[in-house]
Amino acid sequence: MKVNLMHGAGGEVMGELLRVITNLRHNNAGGIGLESLDDGAVIPLNGQNIVFTTDNHVVSPIFFPGGDIGRIAVCGTINDLAMMGGRPVALSCGMVIPEGFDVADLERIVASMDAALDECGASLVTGDTKVLERGALDAIIINTAGIGVAERVVRDNGLVPGDAIIVSGTIGDHGIAIMAHREGFDFGGQIHSDVAPLWTLVEGALATGDIHAMKDPTRGGFANAINEMAKKSRVGVVIEEEALPFRKSVQSAAGMLGIDPLEVANEGKVVMGVAPDDAEAILAALRSHPYGRDAAIVGEVIEGSHVTMRTAIGGERFIEPPIGDPVPRVC
Amino acid sequence: MKVNLMHGAGGEVMGELLRVITNLRHNNAGGIGLESLDDGAVIPLNGQNIVFTTDNHVVSPIFFPGGDIGRIAVCGTINDLAMMGGRPVALSCGMVIPEGFDVADLERIVASMDAALDECGASLVTGDTKVLERGALDAIIINTAGIGVAERVVRDNGLVPGDAIIVSGTIGDHGIAIMAHREGFDFGGQIHSDVAPLWTLVEGALATGDIHAMKDPTRGGFANAINEMAKKSRVGVVIEEEALPFRKSVQSAAGMLGIDPLEVANEGKVVMGVAPDDAEAILAALRSHPYGRDAAIVGEVIEGSHVTMRTAIGGERFIEPPIGDPVPRVC
Ligand SMILES: Nc1ncnc2c1ncn2[C@@H]1O[C@H](COP(=O)(O)OP(=O)(O)OP(=O)(O)O)[C@@H](O)[C@H]1O
Ligand SMILES: Nc1ncnc2c1ncn2[C@@H]1O[C@H](COP(=O)(O)OP(=O)(O)OP(=O)(O)O)[C@@H](O)[C@H]1O
Ligand SMILES: [Mg+2]
Ligand SMILES: [Mg+2]
Ligand SMILES: [Mg+2]
Ligand SMILES: [Mg+2]
Ligand SMILES: [Mg+2]
Ligand SMILES: [Mg+2]
Repeated sequence: MKVNLMHGAGGEVMGELLRVITNLRHNNAGGIGLESLDDGAVIPLNGQNIVFTTDNHVVSPIFFPGGDIGRIAVCGTINDLAMMGGRPVALSCGMVIPEGFDVADLERIVASMDAALDECGASLVTGDTKVLERGALDAIIINTAGIGVAERVVRDNGLVPGDAIIVSGTIGDHGIAIMAHREGFDFGGQIHSDVAPLWTLVEGALATGDIHAMKDPTRGGFANAINEMAKKSRVGVVIEEEALPFRKSVQSAAGMLGIDPLEVANEGKVVMGVAPDDAEAILAALRSHPYGRDAAIVGEVIEGSHVTMRTAIGGERFIEPPIGDPVPRVC
Repeated sequence: MKVNLMHGAGGEVMGELLRVITNLRHNNAGGIGLESLDDGAVIPLNGQNIVFTTDNHVVSPIFFPGGDIGRIAVCGTINDLAMMGGRPVALSCGMVIPEGFDVADLERIVASMDAALDECGASLVTGDTKVLERGALDAIIINTAGIGVAERVVRDNGLVPGDAIIVSGTIGDHGIAIMAHREGFDFGGQIHSDVAPLWTLVEGALATGDIHAMKDPTRGGFANAINEMAKKSRVGVVIEEEALPFRKSVQSAAGMLGIDPLEVANEGKVVMGVAPDDAEAILAALRSHPYGRDAAIVGEVIEGSHVTMRTAIGGERFIEPPIGDPVPRVC
């Protein structure tokens, strides 16, 4: 069998490849390991919950409306730490650079990483740099790994019937921004990526109420994240279509592109399941943060095993786990 | 300015690029950070020294005599943790895979990673996978980051005049194995990479005596490592040529290739400066370990600022810090 593009697209097909890649005996350091396939791992060390995660970034183009590969590289890892309840402490940075790459672009990328770190009090403390010969690689690749500390670990599999499902803002912005930009669509400069570091947003929510499960809806989008959360939690979810927050410009572009905005990556959003009694307070906490202004309660957890959507016109349909994200090299 | 191959070759030229890449305000999480440019960072957490490091692996070919990219990806990070005095606990794995890559090769790589983890009691707990479209990348890239715990942190800048310099075995094996293999030289199958996880070797040495400084002589080889250690420690070093351990086959091949084996990567060796009174005991401890059988005391630390070599014929010459490793895509 050969690896194909869908194997890297964050959906059902990637899951098949992950079964091969994560087939290790040494897959757990005592806490939450690879077997959980959560946003990060947890390692109990000296009575502390150390959270550990990594992401590679291959986004194309490397500078795009609303961000660049440096910002995404820092935020991707900060956000996976935050999804586990982890305060980000330290990041690593592994760069693979094609020969001929402009050093001025590198400076821009590094400055962008520094600015993202500044937003959440984390530091970049170690790294590695490789250069590949002309023709071997078409654009810079940046891996970050991150270490965080969690007072209370949050999993992606803790949904309980009755929980309210909250999203922290508009859906589909990043994926549609990348795709619209590539296709040369101009919506008056209105479509830009949501890429942002979510720790302080999540920190506020954690301090407000009982969060049972979190996940960042990156590759595969909201559809992938909510299906994974429901499946791992062995519950069903009902989403209210009318409650889902979308930017108008994103919806128009998605329509023109023939892409479902529920299936594309977000880089500055969180999906959470929260105790029903805490839902309004957590929503208010999210909305008080610049990255959570459009937060909304979008559904409810039920007994069962599917994610369904009550549509605006009164019907009901499944939100299926996507085969893969329809936007290649989205992050 | 454009990035060129020497910017990734681990020598003096790479240092220039690193000044751009490490130009961050958020470069330290409270312990040893980017400013030190050591093998890894140290983050004090709850009274423990957490060691953190990362390496990208772009070795070509991905299967080579003595190892493969999976083994090198695990060992590279294990060894940088060990160089800081850190017991390896958990690794991350970021894979970037070209479309069309054989899943059977992926299985071999994963099994090889698992075997290397088995040698030192570490686990791979989190990861990420991206797939690039045909033509965008010529071979799989594997990043690993690692977390370790150090009872006593060892830096690369702690050499003191009088210290004995020890290398844990034969020099130049990995770089020459890769280059000889690429050039199609056959020395009766005698040249193979030394790639190995060094934690248990280092652990034994740490328990035996006072190690003032350590570094693994990877890109840029022994010449680079010893110069960096001397410069950072503000001391001189005198090396005895006759004491340097080389495999005969490696020396012959290096001669044919026109490459100085002192300037190419090792992937299973450590260079250390140790208190003179402990040198023999540490040497014996190293030699009792399978990866340290050819360990040797090869020189001494002096007041001053250069690394010189007393040659076999009674002369003296500088061992210069190399411009870069002469073997491209060596690790
Ligand atoms: N190469 C790999 N080695 C080990 N584990 C992997 C690898 N690739 C992915 N995983 C694991 O698979 C799970 C899913 O990974 P994925 O990258 O989809 O998560 P994510 O980082 O939350 O999403 P995204 O990458 O879209 O931001 C995670 O638990 C991750 O640790
Ligand atoms: N892209 C980067 N971002 C931040 N720091 C970096 C980056 N590349 C290298 N560094 C830092 O520069 C120093 C030298 O890196 P280098 O990779 O040469 O060390 P090493 O891993 O010990 O050697 P090798 O990679 O040959 O095994 C390290 O302290 C590393 O953290
Ligand atoms: Mg995630
Ligand atoms: Mg992620
Ligand atoms: Mg390195
Ligand atoms: Mg090193
Ligand atoms: Mg290294
Ligand atoms: Mg990921």
